[in-house]
Amino acid sequence: MSDELLVINPNSSSAVTAAIDRAVTPLREGTSTAIKVIGIAEGPPGIENQAHVEQVVPLVLDAVRKNPQAAGYVISCFSDPGLYAAREATSKPVFGIAECGILTALTLGARFGLISILPKVIQRHIRFVGAMGAGQRFAGDRAIGRGVTQLSDEDATFTRMRDVGIELRDRDGADVVVMACAGMAQYRERLSGALGIPVVEPSQAAVSMALGRLRLGW
Amino acid sequence: MSDELLVINPNSSSAVTAAIDRAVTPLREGTSTAIKVIGIAEGPPGIENQAHVEQVVPLVLDAVRKNPQAAGYVISCFSDPGLYAAREATSKPVFGIAECGILTALTLGARFGLISILPKVIQRHIRFVGAMGAGQRFAGDRAIGRGVTQLSDEDATFTRMRDVGIELRDRDGADVVVMACAGMAQYRERLSGALGIPVVEPSQAAVSMALGRLRLGW
Amino acid sequence: MSDELLVINPNSSSAVTAAIDRAVTPLREGTSTAIKVIGIAEGPPGIENQAHVEQVVPLVLDAVRKNPQAAGYVISCFSDPGLYAAREATSKPVFGIAECGILTALTLGARFGLISILPKVIQRHIRFVGAMGAGQRFAGDRAIGRGVTQLSDEDATFTRMRDVGIELRDRDGADVVVMACAGMAQYRERLSGALGIPVVEPSQAAVSMALGRLRLGW
Amino acid sequence: MSDELLVINPNSSSAVTAAIDRAVTPLREGTSTAIKVIGIAEGPPGIENQAHVEQVVPLVLDAVRKNPQAAGYVISCFSDPGLYAAREATSKPVFGIAECGILTALTLGARFGLISILPKVIQRHIRFVGAMGAGQRFAGDRAIGRGVTQLSDEDATFTRMRDVGIELRDRDGADVVVMACAGMAQYRERLSGALGIPVVEPSQAAVSMALGRLRLGW
Amino acid sequence: MSDELLVINPNSSSAVTAAIDRAVTPLREGTSTAIKVIGIAEGPPGIENQAHVEQVVPLVLDAVRKNPQAAGYVISCFSDPGLYAAREATSKPVFGIAECGILTALTLGARFGLISILPKVIQRHIRFVGAMGAGQRFAGDRAIGRGVTQLSDEDATFTRMRDVGIELRDRDGADVVVMACAGMAQYRERLSGALGIPVVEPSQAAVSMALGRLRLGW
Amino acid sequence: MSDELLVINPNSSSAVTAAIDRAVTPLREGTSTAIKVIGIAEGPPGIENQAHVEQVVPLVLDAVRKNPQAAGYVISCFSDPGLYAAREATSKPVFGIAECGILTALTLGARFGLISILPKVIQRHIRFVGAMGAGQRFAGDRAIGRGVTQLSDEDATFTRMRDVGIELRDRDGADVVVMACAGMAQYRERLSGALGIPVVEPSQAAVSMALGRLRLGW
Repeated sequence: MSDELLVINPNSSSAVTAAIDRAVTPLREGTSTAIKVIGIAEGPPGIENQAHVEQVVPLVLDAVRKNPQAAGYVISCFSDPGLYAAREATSKPVFGIAECGILTALTLGARFGLISILPKVIQRHIRFVGAMGAGQRFAGDRAIGRGVTQLSDEDATFTRMRDVGIELRDRDGADVVVMACAGMAQYRERLSGALGIPVVEPSQAAVSMALGRLRLGW
Repeated sequence: MSDELLVINPNSSSAVTAAIDRAVTPLREGTSTAIKVIGIAEGPPGIENQAHVEQVVPLVLDAVRKNPQAAGYVISCFSDPGLYAAREATSKPVFGIAECGILTALTLGARFGLISILPKVIQRHIRFVGAMGAGQRFAGDRAIGRGVTQLSDEDATFTRMRDVGIELRDRDGADVVVMACAGMAQYRERLSGALGIPVVEPSQAAVSMALGRLRLGW
Repeated sequence: MSDELLVINPNSSSAVTAAIDRAVTPLREGTSTAIKVIGIAEGPPGIENQAHVEQVVPLVLDAVRKNPQAAGYVISCFSDPGLYAAREATSKPVFGIAECGILTALTLGARFGLISILPKVIQRHIRFVGAMGAGQRFAGDRAIGRGVTQLSDEDATFTRMRDVGIELRDRDGADVVVMACAGMAQYRERLSGALGIPVVEPSQAAVSMALGRLRLGW
Repeated sequence: MSDELLVINPNSSSAVTAAIDRAVTPLREGTSTAIKVIGIAEGPPGIENQAHVEQVVPLVLDAVRKNPQAAGYVISCFSDPGLYAAREATSKPVFGIAECGILTALTLGARFGLISILPKVIQRHIRFVGAMGAGQRFAGDRAIGRGVTQLSDEDATFTRMRDVGIELRDRDGADVVVMACAGMAQYRERLSGALGIPVVEPSQAAVSMALGRLRLGW
Repeated sequence: MSDELLVINPNSSSAVTAAIDRAVTPLREGTSTAIKVIGIAEGPPGIENQAHVEQVVPLVLDAVRKNPQAAGYVISCFSDPGLYAAREATSKPVFGIAECGILTALTLGARFGLISILPKVIQRHIRFVGAMGAGQRFAGDRAIGRGVTQLSDEDATFTRMRDVGIELRDRDGADVVVMACAGMAQYRERLSGALGIPVVEPSQAAVSMALGRLRLGW
Repeated sequence: MSDELLVINPNSSSAVTAAIDRAVTPLREGTSTAIKVIGIAEGPPGIENQAHVEQVVPLVLDAVRKNPQAAGYVISCFSDPGLYAAREATSKPVFGIAECGILTALTLGARFGLISILPKVIQRHIRFVGAMGAGQRFAGDRAIGRGVTQLSDEDATFTRMRDVGIELRDRDGADVVVMACAGMAQYRERLSGALGIPVVEPSQAAVSMALGRLRLGW
């Protein structure tokens, strides 16, 4: 059996790819499965609108097809671009970080909130939560108003994430929060501490769910 | 103001394009809006799986961009491929036949059923109905087991549509049915007669909703 | 085939009847269907509570029965009084502006808000949205605190509609708004401009959906 | 404090009025509240379609207004005609047998089924269950195909009720059944025995809930 | 037939037991059924977390088993501890005050809010409302931040209940409120007056529903 | 950091404990985390009704408290007895096999079915799925009619599981099935082959999700 899990960052930002790689590092310890994180050079620097989503779907499918050595795949963008097409294209397990991030949140609280990058992505998240059938436990979705490439400005980003997290917790009733972008990974621990409630980093959640499934072979 | 509504059939089957054109012909009478129906030569002959959906999204977006003279657009495939990206790409109204077909069914009965082509499209429909938030009134989805290009065999197709429609009506409790493929248009009237309940032809439903909106300008 | 669509305003306010007539005027251009708008002299000046709704139901049914020449009917009051009884009484298509207004909003945003006249109508709207099965996409319902006959005071009315619209958008997360009274038609464009999101005028929405259906004959 | 609960049968069938009276007789024992059951001579013999519902609404409201001595009201028809208007017309508690029948079923099983008279009433029930927000626990609705006046033919009626109840239990997964017509009261015990699951008689359920509320005064 | 309804307060606070006893006193007038209220000496003084819930379940079941003379049982704690196990253990009717309080609220308004004692109980309430399938009509749940034993400080408790009730009414859109603790009974009337909307005392609601069911024998 | 995951089988059947142990064996390969499976001698041989569930809750909590060396816990019974109390009792992650089995199924199909042991457990599953908010994707729940201790009769058990799985797939529309009992583990692969759709073994699903979370430390 192959022992590689391929994590695909569909954007071209090497900073995001590196951040995902760092985020999944704790999951590498104590397992014999190789967790390989790749970016897609042809992708946009960040996936911030529906056009970006559609643009990367064929690139994600190509990445799956060109890496038949992998035993499973994680699509590491909170739009889960190409998730259903990839599942159709391969019999190996394919995971999306939005799906796994939200499912993991359901084990940590009664109502989850989403911290998003820009307001325009919220409509897509609402559709996705509806398609998942997770609306009963969806507290709300609030944007920090910063694009993917702006997430590296640590202080400004964290301040907004904390403020938005407090609104999700106190106004919307969220008792667990999902960071709705793969590029926010570095803020998880600090944010959870500031809010006093669990915070889900979705690439970590997806790789966690994937590793066991590779072992089980179903 | 432009007076053209562009109806885009994302597949390459000229038979389907012609069938859509015939279906919307009654809507041309008594209106000064031109209803133009086009196919997409680069599309697959039928859109029968998620790969087909993803493949035609950029083609649909191209068709929107290359036809700026149109005052509005209808995407005439029951997967509504590219619907949200097209809405983002243009400020003109864009309609999908799945969305409009289901919304129209909600004015005709208490619970709608979907008659699909192949079993493998049902998962996508379930996600779409969930994203729409229409699940409370969704009676069921049953496939006739015939692909798009097989729909022209009239007797075999109609027999299966009628049998599946009876199951939706009698087992699943549907009191209105939506034909979940643009290529089924010719069977609407006959099917409604056989089942004794309303049957929605989704391209007709979408063009109906679109024509008024073009007049209103919002 | 008859070529008249009868739009029934169930209240006796000629100002509201005239406002509906003006609202649907753009839909008259370019169609050969006559759109006739009538009021009901025996109705109350505005339909502001459940007693008013029940009072006008037989009047609406009378109007349907006394106008057999029409090819279809629109009930132009946001309570959709008599909608289901009218559908039972005639085999011609019958549309309600609440139903069509909400369905149209579903093509324009992810979550709709309702701008209502008085707080006491909100309970009825909640029941109606529940009966429609549209709750998953219902952001909220807020009242401007003005009755039907007070809607003609333009400045005061618009100011309240804008303030309430901002609350629906910013607190409740609505990205499309439906004006939940036929008497608000004149404010649609200005309100949409002020809010920066689509605003649905429900009589326009219903007549739009009706016109195509008359052509189709189903 | 008045000590009368007025139970209004909105149809003119004295057999149904008498049946309701017999059904609530056990609730008279041990209470000092008078339970008075009246029919409405101007009503139709049975309420079998939406026109009947609308026709009796003003008659029900009249009955409430003409009986101000009552401390509370039960509308004893499974369409709950005039329920919301009556609640608006009086500050005393008003109960509907559909609402109370379904709420009571929720204390007796995980999923309730409805046994209806005629197929055409099912659409109304679906809207009502949706408006109540009870859809998550709604197993199904099946009709026995007999009108109100045919319910007195005991053997034929019971046989159909049992057959339909078995379908609700075995196909639809109901573990509690509500008899969706005030005229079925006499069959409750026998039906529950035949099905082996609880059966709710809705007039009994509503009077039960009403009696306590009259005592409490809220 | 036995004529005793046993109301079980699963906590050991005699003040709460006495408060429940006072609350149900109006229901004793005019009925021949004895309503007996007992506390459980081995229970905690208040049921404020999941450990307390689990701890009292066997005590509640014991109380049911040791009182076979009763014709029915009410579990008078808003967690409904042991409700489903008790229903399994006896063929007599068993009622929970959370279930009955919420069901009763559904007859009094379009959306109910819950006033809870401590923030940590809200997760449990969310699960319970979800299990009941009542989420469509659930406006919100807010805590006063006081434990069961602090509820006897009248002024401080009432002030917080009123403030929280106003938030439920004005921010969350509740038009009926349920007091989500058996120990709040004394504040019902005053709170309803202050808020101007109905307030449900859940032990009263449950005993109301139970008394009729004992008479009916199903 | 501790490196033990404790899997608690709350029943006393050593056959079931051994079956769980075998089921999770593939997950032991390639990880340095010790997966320890224990039974509870004081538990009933199988957890088949609500009384059993309540009976084992304190035993599960004891097992958690007496094993503070563990870094996380899996409650390996499809009733998830004590899940919420255990989460309250420890700050370490606690997983339930019902919750994780269903969440995992959501990554494998559009609608999940449950294969249960006895009909009487279905009511509890319906409540649990409702509390989870997973109802939109719940196809159905069917029982094989065999208790926990009868599951070792391989041929009879498998035949029933296959028949019930076919009903879930063909009548209820499930495209993924969850085996709703920890004692069915041995049949997963064979059942998936027979049905042609994915089958989730819930102890495997829970241990998979738990292993990653132990690594991440949140």
